[in-house]
Amino acid sequence: MTAQPVVLISHQMLAPVQPALEANGYKVARRWELSPEDAAEVRAIIHAGEIPLQQDFLASLPKLGLIACVSVGYDGVDVPAARAAGLEVTHAKGLNADDVADHAIGLLLASWRNLVVGDAVVRDGGWRDDNRMGNRPGLKGRKIGVMGLGAIGEATARRAESFGMIVSWWGPRPKPDAPWPRAESLLALANDVDILVVASRADETNRNLVDRSIIEAVGSRGLIVNVARGSIIDEDALITALKSGTLGRAALDVFAEEPTPPERWADVPNTVLTPHSAGGTVDSIPRMVGQALENVRLFVAGEPVMSPV
Amino acid sequence: MTAQPVVLISHQMLAPVQPALEANGYKVARRWELSPEDAAEVRAIIHAGEIPLQQDFLASLPKLGLIACVSVGYDGVDVPAARAAGLEVTHAKGLNADDVADHAIGLLLASWRNLVVGDAVVRDGGWRDDNRMGNRPGLKGRKIGVMGLGAIGEATARRAESFGMIVSWWGPRPKPDAPWPRAESLLALANDVDILVVASRADETNRNLVDRSIIEAVGSRGLIVNVARGSIIDEDALITALKSGTLGRAALDVFAEEPTPPERWADVPNTVLTPHSAGGTVDSIPRMVGQALENVRLFVAGEPVMSPV
Repeated sequence: MTAQPVVLISHQMLAPVQPALEANGYKVARRWELSPEDAAEVRAIIHAGEIPLQQDFLASLPKLGLIACVSVGYDGVDVPAARAAGLEVTHAKGLNADDVADHAIGLLLASWRNLVVGDAVVRDGGWRDDNRMGNRPGLKGRKIGVMGLGAIGEATARRAESFGMIVSWWGPRPKPDAPWPRAESLLALANDVDILVVASRADETNRNLVDRSIIEAVGSRGLIVNVARGSIIDEDALITALKSGTLGRAALDVFAEEPTPPERWADVPNTVLTPHSAGGTVDSIPRMVGQALENVRLFVAGEPVMSPV
Repeated sequence: MTAQPVVLISHQMLAPVQPALEANGYKVARRWELSPEDAAEVRAIIHAGEIPLQQDFLASLPKLGLIACVSVGYDGVDVPAARAAGLEVTHAKGLNADDVADHAIGLLLASWRNLVVGDAVVRDGGWRDDNRMGNRPGLKGRKIGVMGLGAIGEATARRAESFGMIVSWWGPRPKPDAPWPRAESLLALANDVDILVVASRADETNRNLVDRSIIEAVGSRGLIVNVARGSIIDEDALITALKSGTLGRAALDVFAEEPTPPERWADVPNTVLTPHSAGGTVDSIPRMVGQALENVRLFVAGEPVMSPV
């Protein structure tokens, strides 16, 4: 009888994947309780791409050949080093763009229309007849800038158009087929728009690229939405700008550190914060997990994986 | 010198309109401090259409000729009785449909994607690694039913389509040019959809039309959004259904009584509540006020008003 291939789950948040792995004939090891015997046999890792995977840990798994990220992003994996060590890396390709774009627009509206504040006003008895008339601008005709026009950025832009918003974008590479104009630079985009949505894939080239100058260019009446990665925004500069009013608002699903410490946001006004939940829905998670499982199956069978990074 | 025409502001929430009225040459009277001398001279009322205007109060204003609603709705005005008394009634026609539709989609997303709950989780320190993977369905391919396909309903439907949602609608009158199918009845619509958005103009024909049977047809996984008027939904039945789980979620900008008592919602799960703020933005309010002022000007000048109900 052939031994079951051992697949490692790298993080507790992925524990729900275990039954599906077992149903597909794998022996499941869990990183947070990994035995030396299992470590010696791990063939593949099921991974959440934003969590750092240290090289020395990977080097401790002699039979490892595949890191299969359930996520779209894989910024926690040092891909060149993994390749140099002979490891393949796969990710969920284009499977949750609609969900993330839904969340981006949800954050945008929740911030722009004061929905979280409004909910608290109703529940706290703060609704008075003389304070109901709003002081928020509408959305029609406002300018939205999308940083990173991949699948998520494009899906966000299409939704924004239905609200009558005017779309432009910036990314490091021109896209001649894009239906919206590309700004000359990120700073030019930030200067031009009312709302900046960060939708870029995170890597070392864009760490803290949204710095103080970009944040202040979005400005005191502007809103920054981030559904990409916390690393792309200089979060200390963002908090300083919100406190001083040089940035109007921020709506964030991702943070420099996750979970983000609550005390970090206690005195920061005009924020809507969600716990990195943009990409995960009951529709998309099974598709993303399914793609990771298929990559494991292909790898174990010696066939080419379906969604390499 | 001709006496200034007296214009009455009917409610404190409209107090911000006073400077504009005075700048246009009117003497402003305020209902909450109305003197008998001013009451005898009131020519027009600037009104928020959802607030009840009693006939006996109107009858106490001998020179009254116009009720100019700043709002789109005018359900607080008994229009046949006003007409019988020789009064004209105007409203804001089609001026804030985009704002209300923005708010409707904002409420929809805030509820469907747990945005208000997510914000509280981040701030309360409840974000843990093992509870991040969401249990919410996505929106693409879900069915949305619009009750009332006027300007607001149509603007809401167009936005919903950009999220990949499938639109149908119901209203009392067929609309042969509507691009979406009309359900045979409100109950058929409620049975068919995941999300019901109430966008009808309120009147006596639809009071409590969204009753227990409609609410339970939307169902335990369904969401009801209301940006129209609280009177259209049987609010006691809605609360009962949310508590028992026969309705999944509700996102409400309007209520049976406004301001709604906070204690009414203290034990009601899965709700997002905003203080009747869908229609009011700094873009739309000046347009709506401007239209009301123009109606007053036309009336005082003896010309036909521009937006009669």
